[in-house]
Amino acid sequence: MPKKKSSQNSGKKLSTDPYKGVRDFYPEDMYIENYLFETMRDVVEHFGYEEYATSLLEPSELFEGKTSEEIVREQTYSFVDRGDRRVTLRPEMTPSVARLVAAQKRNLAFPLRWYTIANVFRYERPQRGRLREHFQLNCDLFGVKSTEGDVEIILLAYELMRAFGATESEFEIRINHRAVIPETLALLAKEHGATLPQQKQGELIRLMDRRDKMKAEPYAEAMRDLLGEELSKIVLLHYKPSAIRKLIAQTNAGQELLDVLETLDRRGIQNIVHDPHLVRGFDYYSGTIFEVFDTAATNKRSLFGGGRYDNLLELFGAEPLPTVGFGMGDVTLRDFLETHNLLPEYTSPIDLYLGVTSPAMFSFAAQLAQRLRRHDLTVAVDLTGKKVGDQIKTASRKKVPFVCIVGEDEEESGMYRLKHLASKKEYVVPEGQVADVIFETLE
Amino acid sequence: MPKKKSSQNSGKKLSTDPYKGVRDFYPEDMYIENYLFETMRDVVEHFGYEEYATSLLEPSELFEGKTSEEIVREQTYSFVDRGDRRVTLRPEMTPSVARLVAAQKRNLAFPLRWYTIANVFRYERPQRGRLREHFQLNCDLFGVKSTEGDVEIILLAYELMRAFGATESEFEIRINHRAVIPETLALLAKEHGATLPQQKQGELIRLMDRRDKMKAEPYAEAMRDLLGEELSKIVLLHYKPSAIRKLIAQTNAGQELLDVLETLDRRGIQNIVHDPHLVRGFDYYSGTIFEVFDTAATNKRSLFGGGRYDNLLELFGAEPLPTVGFGMGDVTLRDFLETHNLLPEYTSPIDLYLGVTSPAMFSFAAQLAQRLRRHDLTVAVDLTGKKVGDQIKTASRKKVPFVCIVGEDEEESGMYRLKHLASKKEYVVPEGQVADVIFETLE
Repeated sequence: MPKKKSSQNSGKKLSTDPYKGVRDFYPEDMYIENYLFETMRDVVEHFGYEEYATSLLEPSELFEGKTSEEIVREQTYSFVDRGDRRVTLRPEMTPSVARLVAAQKRNLAFPLRWYTIANVFRYERPQRGRLREHFQLNCDLFGVKSTEGDVEIILLAYELMRAFGATESEFEIRINHRAVIPETLALLAKEHGATLPQQKQGELIRLMDRRDKMKAEPYAEAMRDLLGEELSKIVLLHYKPSAIRKLIAQTNAGQELLDVLETLDRRGIQNIVHDPHLVRGFDYYSGTIFEVFDTAATNKRSLFGGGRYDNLLELFGAEPLPTVGFGMGDVTLRDFLETHNLLPEYTSPIDLYLGVTSPAMFSFAAQLAQRLRRHDLTVAVDLTGKKVGDQIKTASRKKVPFVCIVGEDEEESGMYRLKHLASKKEYVVPEGQVADVIFETLE
Repeated sequence: MPKKKSSQNSGKKLSTDPYKGVRDFYPEDMYIENYLFETMRDVVEHFGYEEYATSLLEPSELFEGKTSEEIVREQTYSFVDRGDRRVTLRPEMTPSVARLVAAQKRNLAFPLRWYTIANVFRYERPQRGRLREHFQLNCDLFGVKSTEGDVEIILLAYELMRAFGATESEFEIRINHRAVIPETLALLAKEHGATLPQQKQGELIRLMDRRDKMKAEPYAEAMRDLLGEELSKIVLLHYKPSAIRKLIAQTNAGQELLDVLETLDRRGIQNIVHDPHLVRGFDYYSGTIFEVFDTAATNKRSLFGGGRYDNLLELFGAEPLPTVGFGMGDVTLRDFLETHNLLPEYTSPIDLYLGVTSPAMFSFAAQLAQRLRRHDLTVAVDLTGKKVGDQIKTASRKKVPFVCIVGEDEEESGMYRLKHLASKKEYVVPEGQVADVIFETLE
């Protein structure tokens, strides 16, 4: 804990850099971020999802149960507070929402459709698509056992992508089922006269989870090391969608996976594929899992995903609760939208910029602005005392659409010259018509 | 750093409590929180303020320069990250926004009107109005030297209170000026034939800052201890608005204070007072300061405040920049609105709840919901398979205004029975009229 005197820095120049791996959002950046968040809210609220929130700071124990071991051991921001409590900046949202539901389980009316847009922290090496802090839309549907719930969550992910302007050819939704993976692997081995030892299953699935990040040869080698020559050959050659599709129906959980795939197909979603290698990192998934992939050659990567986790509430001693959800991160989403030219252009939230001929007009301009705000205009006043030309330049640099200079003439006549900076058109109108002219032009 | 295996907690039941002193927001809580944030956004954006954001996590040095010493020494959440960087969860927003402005000073078009709604952390004993995490609206006006800037910021605070429904009699805005305090104290002493020693000024002002939190007798005693019998008597008896009003004009900074008070008076704001004891904790204030007070007998306390700080950018080696701003916290605001009965009642974001006669109807209902969403309705489907009566009860517990049960009859006839739960009125309409009926009723 720093206990040094606050005067210690006097004379020393502080850096203007943010902490490593986190972002500063200037207004033009925030415009994009708000566009992402507002689009998310709009889509999920139409599906009946309600917003909740928890603190970023959680007791460390919360994440030591079910979050992936790699994250807890290597990537959490954890520390001891001044009262000797072990605390963690959440690396993901799911344990927190499970905590909320467990705490009020008897008082909540299921099904629950809940969402949050929350920041999460992971200690990672900053790189494209990965930062130490990012924001995630988290959507969860609690209390629905039917695969119609899995379908809704995947459709919600699909509709989000569409709302951001993505076409079906620009992304792909890969689907798998956690319980189907070990069963089909065992059946495949059996079909080829071999046996997959129970104790190798977990490690094999973890290896498959890393497949997309590995080159083909090291992957095959790791497979040989784990399973031996014969068994690894079977998996490498035959564990493919076409070959194992017929095995799925023979597994216990297979019907759920087929239901999800077929229902989505019937609803007319074209960009769905079954991906038998899809695993998803978190330990708590128990059923359907899915990931949304960018199909662009330059940005081929997983964008976000989720799945069914029916047993997480057991952590809190509560009865299991069927749950399916996903988390959509802002960093990868922004990269996707940039890659596909889908980011909106910045527009200023200010409708009208009032300049003044001299500081003596500040008070008049401020009061005019206040009256115009009652007509729902957003109005900023230049109170710097700069030259008129410089005030107009300021409005232009801020990308404000309309500017109006106020002086004694305007005060006397009550007529205002509105200049639309983009078209250079001018409108001379009384105060009562200022809002109308601006709204007509901006609509 | 916790390095224990993630399996260590298996079998152990986790608590559902949040970390001490922070809040969980269930949807009904979040409704209020969103009402606060949306009202804030609406008011400040009409004044032309643009949103920015920074990370909660900042290099510790940022706060060791100018944030009040008490906060840095006793209340920050600080720790060392896995890369040996000292980091702090921000206890306030001002140093971060100063960092942003300093970093891009040459590229920004002044005046800047910036706002953020950001969480801040302080290690405090949780009590009414004080939590370890709270959210703050922070508004700052950069680049305006004129007192018209101070007036705008105070008017903005005033308009925020009015937008939340507060009348002028429910709150009071107390105003003072940092540079005027020591000058009037010195003049007052002189007027009574005494001298206030330069080296006692700082401590005297810090004592005055604690005046509202102390009883009269200990305050007087502390004053006597600091200044001695004679001088303390002068301050205690004569340092009052009426007595020192005439001294203000004799000080160097007095005209600024008088300008602010008189301009606000001329603009018709009735609930403004000059409070010579107002100090505000942060070390960086350099001019006008103000605080908004609740006038309710049951909640007499400071709600929020701000002021002018022209020198903060020097921390980063940048030229000084005239700046005035304030921070408005959500916890005290919520208490205020509760005290004055100004909190809105919860309404569900869901317009229509679709129940089903049996799980065989899930898919039909889900597709109907999807079509209705295209008419801008927010629609949730009950996918639990519960009895029809229980599904209606669920809708009612969620406070959804309309419910509609979908079965084979509805599928066949294309006619839907919409039930308005509050009035018990029913409307039987074809799909194309569902949205119209609901919007007409809800408007």
